[in-house]
Amino acid sequence: MKSALSPLGQRTDNPAISWLMGLTLSRPELISLAAGFTDSESLPVAEARALLDELLRSKRTGRVALQYGSTQGDPELRRLTAQWVERSDGARSGSSLYSPDRLVITHGSQQLLYILSEALFAPGEVMLVEDPTYFVTLGIAQSHGIRCRGVRMETDGIDLAHLKRVLDKLKLSGDLPRLKLLYLVSYFQNPTGTTTSWAKKAGALGLLRHYERAAGHRLYLLEDAAYRELRFAGDDVPSALTCQGAAERVIYTGTFSKPFATGVRVGYGFLPEPLLSVGLRIKGNHDFGTANLLQRLLARALASGKFEQHLAVLRARYARKAKIMDAAMRRHFPPGVEWLMPHGGLYHWPRLPGRIKTGRRSKLFRTTLARNVLYVPGELCYADDPTRPKPDCEMRLSFGGASETDIREGIAQLGQAMQKLTD
Amino acid sequence: MKSALSPLGQRTDNPAISWLMGLTLSRPELISLAAGFTDSESLPVAEARALLDELLRSKRTGRVALQYGSTQGDPELRRLTAQWVERSDGARSGSSLYSPDRLVITHGSQQLLYILSEALFAPGEVMLVEDPTYFVTLGIAQSHGIRCRGVRMETDGIDLAHLKRVLDKLKLSGDLPRLKLLYLVSYFQNPTGTTTSWAKKAGALGLLRHYERAAGHRLYLLEDAAYRELRFAGDDVPSALTCQGAAERVIYTGTFSKPFATGVRVGYGFLPEPLLSVGLRIKGNHDFGTANLLQRLLARALASGKFEQHLAVLRARYARKAKIMDAAMRRHFPPGVEWLMPHGGLYHWPRLPGRIKTGRRSKLFRTTLARNVLYVPGELCYADDPTRPKPDCEMRLSFGGASETDIREGIAQLGQAMQKLTD
Repeated sequence: MKSALSPLGQRTDNPAISWLMGLTLSRPELISLAAGFTDSESLPVAEARALLDELLRSKRTGRVALQYGSTQGDPELRRLTAQWVERSDGARSGSSLYSPDRLVITHGSQQLLYILSEALFAPGEVMLVEDPTYFVTLGIAQSHGIRCRGVRMETDGIDLAHLKRVLDKLKLSGDLPRLKLLYLVSYFQNPTGTTTSWAKKAGALGLLRHYERAAGHRLYLLEDAAYRELRFAGDDVPSALTCQGAAERVIYTGTFSKPFATGVRVGYGFLPEPLLSVGLRIKGNHDFGTANLLQRLLARALASGKFEQHLAVLRARYARKAKIMDAAMRRHFPPGVEWLMPHGGLYHWPRLPGRIKTGRRSKLFRTTLARNVLYVPGELCYADDPTRPKPDCEMRLSFGGASETDIREGIAQLGQAMQKLTD
Repeated sequence: MKSALSPLGQRTDNPAISWLMGLTLSRPELISLAAGFTDSESLPVAEARALLDELLRSKRTGRVALQYGSTQGDPELRRLTAQWVERSDGARSGSSLYSPDRLVITHGSQQLLYILSEALFAPGEVMLVEDPTYFVTLGIAQSHGIRCRGVRMETDGIDLAHLKRVLDKLKLSGDLPRLKLLYLVSYFQNPTGTTTSWAKKAGALGLLRHYERAAGHRLYLLEDAAYRELRFAGDDVPSALTCQGAAERVIYTGTFSKPFATGVRVGYGFLPEPLLSVGLRIKGNHDFGTANLLQRLLARALASGKFEQHLAVLRARYARKAKIMDAAMRRHFPPGVEWLMPHGGLYHWPRLPGRIKTGRRSKLFRTTLARNVLYVPGELCYADDPTRPKPDCEMRLSFGGASETDIREGIAQLGQAMQKLTD
């Protein structure tokens, strides 16, 4: 008998995230430097308890929290979130770009990435991504048959000259009308830790505008600011919402999962029309609104100042863990392994000397796993882009979930496995 | 400039649910007999507060609740949910059909309906639905370009003779290979309140099996048991999981939103392979797991017995509200309006004498709304099935969300509007 599955059902691979999370959860003895879990010890258990207790103490506020809300999301949470982003951007108060009416609350910011993929892409159409990029987005793209093209990275974001060459190539091959969107993880990028400068955001947006005529439609810039709040060094960079031409083409998405609690999956996005209307229709079909209890909890966390207080704790904690991992890598990794110190986020991204492969089938990955240490092979973070060979000598190491002891021990084991291969 | 939207993005209509919920939330003075909101007064505010307090009192359990989980869902919640359904079915303990491994936890059972639509249907393919059916499923189908065909209803579920005729017609027209699934809301159906008998479930499944050879693939039966726990009269009916041939073709979905709290959006489904694997892949791309805090809360509610205790409260409450609405309708509706008393759920489904239309553009709908009363026009619950004219003289009236006073007042207003039209 043939399969009853749809083309999407048949095409969709097991996402790397499921494979990695499954591996982590099924082996309690494993030191996972792979999962993007946040630091467990600093999860706001007491804060969440107090906030929920307050919320459910009164029947009036409790009933609202336990009842359905609207598809777009709780009005107070949208207002507070819009203010939060506007303040982060230092933008003139009252700019219509930061209107809560343009904001949608989602079940994690991932749901927004998914909905946008549905709203914009038919199979065979094209998304530009950083090379490397967030592997979950690559999984969503794979499922929808979206072709991803990588744009090279520099230490301050994508290489604009390369972006122009990629756009020119798409124009030449007649693929430009299939291009819909450039995806940037602009703060302490997953996986490389890179932060995109404001100039590069403005430059990328300018290039997209320039090619719109040839594309025949709007070219969107999707700024994924999932890690923005987790800065532990340097100054914040304004978002692409502050660049010229943002009103019609910038989608800005953020999340409360990483800076508050990953078990409270609430993300959000500012969307330009017609994506806002269409996104809301699709969200209506997904779930007609994110669980209200989570939204009311976060609205309280923001309004009470507890969210911001907790951020200060998190920042200090991740700064410390990033340094511990850095020091352990200096001590245990063989010479020739290179990395940059990120200014925030959860990840180190060491690059190994060319002869050591890091891929899922590599000797290093297998021997490391045998030593009960898991990392994310760098290859998972690269799009299937036929215009270049896929790099396979990098790894994403998270200092988010692992304890300090496990970071030290994990890096030591990883270093020993590397040493054996270089000897 | 052309639209950058995908075919899905261009096609997706504003779902009726968003329109109705928006209308309700934007007019606080409105008496909504439309929204599928549950009874606010009986929401388990104190129970949720106690359970969350317990959960977050200890760092150990609190941290688990505030951290990411797995895509498939919390193992304890899956175990307890599987037991719950198995016990409801009175099934032999240990049947592999009720294995927690076959269960996926979702962000409301609606997410499961969405994921199944993605996994199974290409645009132009066919779903069989009850005529009428749950309008949110019709919205999901519309977005995905799925053609719905209605199967007539009797007082104990679909008309099996009509189902056979529909299948024969599809076979004759060559459309049978495009058919994937029959969708049944089997307990106190949304919108009609009808409960499907076990014999009809078994009969429907038998018919699907019979036509599989001609279809060339598996034909699935999706049983949506969203209201099963809200029974206030009569005995429970075993699910389609107990019918012969269920292992390969029955998808059973349920929810904790309606029987516990709609603000805690957690649903679930038992899936046969390969839908289970594919559904998990797609769920991984949607959100890699439903918010853990909600899952841990429900696991505690089930394990502590509070869920079941709360059900007894709910059942008594809905029994009372159903009767109040029934009595008000008897008093205020003109002769010729007909309805059956449901044995559970949230809805009455009166049918008006033929000359009174109930549709969105009808005089009755407009004058009723002018009197600040909202109902769901029956036409919204019928698929766009070209093989029959769409009935337009019914309405879905929910006794879930409205207070007893509002039910009485809303029905009185509605009755007066009807009287004016019949005079």
